[in-house]
Amino acid sequence: MDGYSVRAQDTYGASESLPALLTVVGDVPTGQQSSVSLRIGEAAVAYTGGMLAQGADAVVMIERTLTVDENTIEVTSPVAPGENVVQVSEDVELGDVVLPSAHRIRSQDVGGMLALGITEVEVVRKPRVAIISTGDELVMPDETPKPGQVRDINSYTIAARVTECGAVPVNYDLVPDNFEAQLAVAQRAFDSADVLIFSAGSSLSSRDMTIDVLNRLGEPGALVHGISIKPGKPTIVGIAKGKPLFGLPGNPVSAVVVFDLVVRPIIHLVSGLTESPAWPPVMAILSRDVPSVAGREDHIPVRLHRENGVLCAEPVFGKSNLIFTLVNSDGMMAIPMDDGGRYAGEQVEVRLHGGP
Amino acid sequence: MDGYSVRAQDTYGASESLPALLTVVGDVPTGQQSSVSLRIGEAAVAYTGGMLAQGADAVVMIERTLTVDENTIEVTSPVAPGENVVQVSEDVELGDVVLPSAHRIRSQDVGGMLALGITEVEVVRKPRVAIISTGDELVMPDETPKPGQVRDINSYTIAARVTECGAVPVNYDLVPDNFEAQLAVAQRAFDSADVLIFSAGSSLSSRDMTIDVLNRLGEPGALVHGISIKPGKPTIVGIAKGKPLFGLPGNPVSAVVVFDLVVRPIIHLVSGLTESPAWPPVMAILSRDVPSVAGREDHIPVRLHRENGVLCAEPVFGKSNLIFTLVNSDGMMAIPMDDGGRYAGEQVEVRLHGGP
Repeated sequence: MDGYSVRAQDTYGASESLPALLTVVGDVPTGQQSSVSLRIGEAAVAYTGGMLAQGADAVVMIERTLTVDENTIEVTSPVAPGENVVQVSEDVELGDVVLPSAHRIRSQDVGGMLALGITEVEVVRKPRVAIISTGDELVMPDETPKPGQVRDINSYTIAARVTECGAVPVNYDLVPDNFEAQLAVAQRAFDSADVLIFSAGSSLSSRDMTIDVLNRLGEPGALVHGISIKPGKPTIVGIAKGKPLFGLPGNPVSAVVVFDLVVRPIIHLVSGLTESPAWPPVMAILSRDVPSVAGREDHIPVRLHRENGVLCAEPVFGKSNLIFTLVNSDGMMAIPMDDGGRYAGEQVEVRLHGGP
Repeated sequence: MDGYSVRAQDTYGASESLPALLTVVGDVPTGQQSSVSLRIGEAAVAYTGGMLAQGADAVVMIERTLTVDENTIEVTSPVAPGENVVQVSEDVELGDVVLPSAHRIRSQDVGGMLALGITEVEVVRKPRVAIISTGDELVMPDETPKPGQVRDINSYTIAARVTECGAVPVNYDLVPDNFEAQLAVAQRAFDSADVLIFSAGSSLSSRDMTIDVLNRLGEPGALVHGISIKPGKPTIVGIAKGKPLFGLPGNPVSAVVVFDLVVRPIIHLVSGLTESPAWPPVMAILSRDVPSVAGREDHIPVRLHRENGVLCAEPVFGKSNLIFTLVNSDGMMAIPMDDGGRYAGEQVEVRLHGGP
């Protein structure tokens, strides 16, 4: 605080009608140790961030004083010992855990470490996530697709998502639906990556091929084929030699939903976090009925807007293979498996795009 | 959908007890144009992501069919024309605005653009934000502070925050509380930066010096000195030659709060966004009473945890100059200016750290 270092007891009983008169005997410039020592009835000019004068045990804010003359002030209210003073160890004590292990460093953590003189810290290498796009129908984004072909957009969308969650994406060339070709690329990628993602072709036969390829990478191979969420059903999850493997659905929205729900938490674990960072939901009022089929978890893109100060979620309907339902949304709402839908006016949880 | 291309009218009235019998005359491999043409009573194998056979107008899901023999299927429920088919222009129509200008590109936007063959896009240069730390009491983080000195942590904390909001921080050397020295660094930084931040010394005289320096950079100079928030009162806001100038409070928590509320939106505007991205609050139940003084806006760090599935906010009390109140928190809650505080059990809005 800007004000005066004082001995608290010299201010006891002070009021506007009966102020305490103190003699100002010096000041303690910021950034220096005090060379001033207070006796009974004395004060020293104090600056925010500066040290107390010797013998002082509190600071009176400048607003609670009046200047009588060059060397005399009136203190108009009492202070208690320790008031407006930060004690040694008040922020961190010797022996405190400053940051837990398995923690992602945030901007304020940088400040906290530097405050303690910690200018170097051991960190975990960012995981490398290999992304392989397969499918006879895929062409590169800068090519013009012929009838029946589509541009590969999933590997780039997923790569951007991988970056968002703190890992390093490594994209591979497009691979056709040919077992030997896929296996060759998969083995090369698998050796140098920590996580392997197959952005699988969308046909049944293509997905079967993905399973066969993943099973050849090591034990135990594919563990899950198909999960009860929409969109995202044709998902493959496996492990080989301790490395996680994923086969994402070919349709772009499914791929993003499965990435967020299934792949992202695993990337966090591989990053050294003991649990995936919370992705606290935003609560919003649903603006339209959203039907859902019981027996599977539904994920619906929503757009957020404020209406009279209330946050509202407008579902963005559209077939689940249309990337622009995501482009036109701010986040996703989930309808649990045993639920038949949600009505307009209900409060729903929205998971914003670009989570931690 | 995996299934069969059909003429919808051939399935009308089909049921499990009275299925429609169709002859399978070929398939349309994914990634190719159809060479198969359907006549009455015919179907062709269809793969997800593939094209319709010529003459077909719908797809029957494979789950709604039974195989009778190599060339014959039973369809057990009718489909309408267009069912399970994505039409040309269903995702985006010619002339649609795909992404607005002044938009920050997200992972799904990458996918959306690539889907349309847009592989290059003009973007705004990230703004350069100069950060100058001033104050006689400051030493570098790798130095051991003498009595009365503190390590400079604000310029690094703020730099990390600048990066989080999509701009490029440029840190300058520590400058003592000397007008000529500060002006020289400020002018050099001002010329090459888009936004100038003074992480001001914490004493009154130092803040006065900051104002004088900012006023010398150009018209109109400092516009605001002091805002009614806690922590964060001694904030300076100005403009010179169209460039925003800020003097942040010396205490680290105040600096972060003011950065989030005042500086961040301006960096977004300078980044070319027409409005600062929404920072939708997370709703949580307050676990303790939080008193507040009417007449100023209070910002209190809170820690989030789940209790029986309910998100709870535990205030992290501590003097506002203690960086570890931020390190130990997940976000901030605000108490509006005219409010006397919040009670335990009330629902409060929490702004998570690391906002957009």
